[in-house]
Amino acid sequence: MRYILVLGAGRSSTSLIDYLLKHAPEDRYQVLVNDVDLKLAQEKIGGHALGEASAIDIRQESDRRKLISKCFLVISLLPPVLHQIIAEDCLNLHKHLLTASYLSPELQDLHQDALDKGLLFLTETGLDPGIDHMSAIKLIREIKAESGAIHSFKSYTGGLIEKKSDNNPWHYKITWNPRNVVMAGSQTARLRENGEVKFVPHSHLFREAHQVDLGHLGLFEMYPNRDSISYANIYDIDLVPTIIRGTLRHPGFCKAWAGLVSLGLTDDQLVVDTSQFGSYRDLLQAFLPGDHTSLAEKIAKRILMVEPQVIEQIKWLFDETPLPAENMSVAKLTEHLIIEKWVLQPQDQDLVVMHHEVEYHVGKTCIKRTSSMSMTGQNSRKTAMANLVGLPLGICARLLCHDKLLLRGVHLPVHQEIYLPTLQELQIFGVKFTETKSAL
Amino acid sequence: MRYILVLGAGRSSTSLIDYLLKHAPEDRYQVLVNDVDLKLAQEKIGGHALGEASAIDIRQESDRRKLISKCFLVISLLPPVLHQIIAEDCLNLHKHLLTASYLSPELQDLHQDALDKGLLFLTETGLDPGIDHMSAIKLIREIKAESGAIHSFKSYTGGLIEKKSDNNPWHYKITWNPRNVVMAGSQTARLRENGEVKFVPHSHLFREAHQVDLGHLGLFEMYPNRDSISYANIYDIDLVPTIIRGTLRHPGFCKAWAGLVSLGLTDDQLVVDTSQFGSYRDLLQAFLPGDHTSLAEKIAKRILMVEPQVIEQIKWLFDETPLPAENMSVAKLTEHLIIEKWVLQPQDQDLVVMHHEVEYHVGKTCIKRTSSMSMTGQNSRKTAMANLVGLPLGICARLLCHDKLLLRGVHLPVHQEIYLPTLQELQIFGVKFTETKSAL
Repeated sequence: MRYILVLGAGRSSTSLIDYLLKHAPEDRYQVLVNDVDLKLAQEKIGGHALGEASAIDIRQESDRRKLISKCFLVISLLPPVLHQIIAEDCLNLHKHLLTASYLSPELQDLHQDALDKGLLFLTETGLDPGIDHMSAIKLIREIKAESGAIHSFKSYTGGLIEKKSDNNPWHYKITWNPRNVVMAGSQTARLRENGEVKFVPHSHLFREAHQVDLGHLGLFEMYPNRDSISYANIYDIDLVPTIIRGTLRHPGFCKAWAGLVSLGLTDDQLVVDTSQFGSYRDLLQAFLPGDHTSLAEKIAKRILMVEPQVIEQIKWLFDETPLPAENMSVAKLTEHLIIEKWVLQPQDQDLVVMHHEVEYHVGKTCIKRTSSMSMTGQNSRKTAMANLVGLPLGICARLLCHDKLLLRGVHLPVHQEIYLPTLQELQIFGVKFTETKSAL
Repeated sequence: MRYILVLGAGRSSTSLIDYLLKHAPEDRYQVLVNDVDLKLAQEKIGGHALGEASAIDIRQESDRRKLISKCFLVISLLPPVLHQIIAEDCLNLHKHLLTASYLSPELQDLHQDALDKGLLFLTETGLDPGIDHMSAIKLIREIKAESGAIHSFKSYTGGLIEKKSDNNPWHYKITWNPRNVVMAGSQTARLRENGEVKFVPHSHLFREAHQVDLGHLGLFEMYPNRDSISYANIYDIDLVPTIIRGTLRHPGFCKAWAGLVSLGLTDDQLVVDTSQFGSYRDLLQAFLPGDHTSLAEKIAKRILMVEPQVIEQIKWLFDETPLPAENMSVAKLTEHLIIEKWVLQPQDQDLVVMHHEVEYHVGKTCIKRTSSMSMTGQNSRKTAMANLVGLPLGICARLLCHDKLLLRGVHLPVHQEIYLPTLQELQIFGVKFTETKSAL
């Protein structure tokens, strides 16, 4: 019997492992789950007869190779920095590799080698990146098939919290990597607007978040991703004058986060001697001017915003919670804080929203098409996020098992033979895109 | 006859080389000047009989070692990244080393080795760092000698332009490393105010620059240096409740620079495809919102400042100057621009201002002492900056020649045997500190 190896048994792996195990008997494979935490790996397998847990240290070359050589396919949910060594092993040991992480230039460099060896290294096959690519490309190709000339492409995704589980003033809880939440917007964003390249520096990214009305999905705030233009070529919309890819938040999040950025509380370079501060509130005070005014006035002065709601959000977050004992960067300290204050409670339900909006013309008719999807999680273990990151990986793994995915080399899921069956099967899990089409 | 080796014949070396050559006959040494640009090295020597120019590539180990082995003392004005390999050579070849750069932890690690071999590695012996340390320490020790208990230490230095040579709306020209001008304030500053640690994030550093009135020296703007507290121990003022070290600019500079920072134009991570933009004005446009308003309104919206003067300064700087052909970071592009627009004309005179301000009490009497110095350059070659960076190095080199500097190991110029004779001889060159003392 063949083995599928899942590396990492963290939050995002739940749905993937469940899905793989469910189909293991019919597809005749076993699922091997490796994590530094053996109990976590065992827990995810839940005693399934075709599941096996291990806790091999992935940084130990010989152990790692032994593990990889057992399987015919590796699905890595490990931190992106580890993907290159795993990819090199997969190349040497003749194994396919699937990940939900961004394609790195180093991995791209392995394309010819993977092709020569008859292997598929499929990356960016989770939610965002992943389902966003698949559904956007599908929409774009449909429009091109009806001879539409696209002049605007906008695509937004948000990993959010369901209204009934939303009980903090930030309207946000952690459903994915908290490090990414803190570092989001630490770099200048690049997008294209009416034919012009536009840069939005990190100090303005959240401050200038747009309100977007997604109809029945509701009202959200959107800030642009780091580089919207980098996908223009992959989506085959190189010359489209407006290209914006963005992240969604519930209204009220972005301005307050802009405040934290402005205060310097997302700085990853400044290492703080935590012994000097009793609590996060003390740390906040150190980032404020020494004026003899109220805390609220000092915050308002520094963030150049006077909205009471924003001040309250910052005060709510930076409260009397004690600092970790270890010295670390301010960004790391803020990460520790949000992990604690924005924790998903066991019965909390998360929400994922995705929306594409394409404007084009056919002849003299201007048309707008939208394609939107939302999914609510069951609880803190079975999140919509884990579903949407894990299921596309699982579906693609099974396509490989069934020899229905014959593409080889290093790829993103922008090929029909990947995205059509994947989006199709995702519908069974409630991932349904609602489409609208209207004349402009 | 002995050799003194000067590495680097750039802007800061002029006064140093002149000084060393002037004293060469009496002190019986020769001055060897090495630079990648042979003509520049020859020009700085000006045909002096005891001068010798060379153009050895310092990155070639064997050539570098041959060069260093000829001399008994190395003065390095090279970029700081090169100091460690030169220090290692000096250690192996038994040579003293003087630099005007910040002491790195790696160089500090060579202390015991230098001590064992009877060598002096003296760093931070230019202007700032350099003369600022020497004059501050002298003042602090004098106050301690009169049993003064210090409660506030402030120290400011500025490399500026003389009023009569000031003909641009920024009131600034380049007299030192332009890269440092652009990157100044790219990190959060740390200082101590009334017993509390305060952090000032880079987005506010220039925006919140204080006006400081330095009496007869005039009115300036001051922004805090990166880490004011790191010198508390060296200055022996560990427990002093207020410690601020800062940089001076002419009034009107800081707010406009805050504008550039806010616009994202000092971002060193974002690499720009310069072929997409015709001029610096086009680049500026890309960093502004796409609204259908005037350039001034768009700038004001992004920088959250409405002062017409600030807008004018930004427009003046980011004009129709063409961009370099090479792709580079925005910070590098801005560096190229200021090198061109803030160039020192041949007859321009620069200005250096230094000011220390110490508050303390003796018994129940509160006292304030200040110590200030300013120097005007002759022209763009003989700048005050070059004088003040080069002369302390030259003076210390001669103290070593005369066996009057017996300290060994890795040091800063905070020892009496260095700062007393150095400050003494600097007076001959017009470096005179004016002191005031008043009851508070």
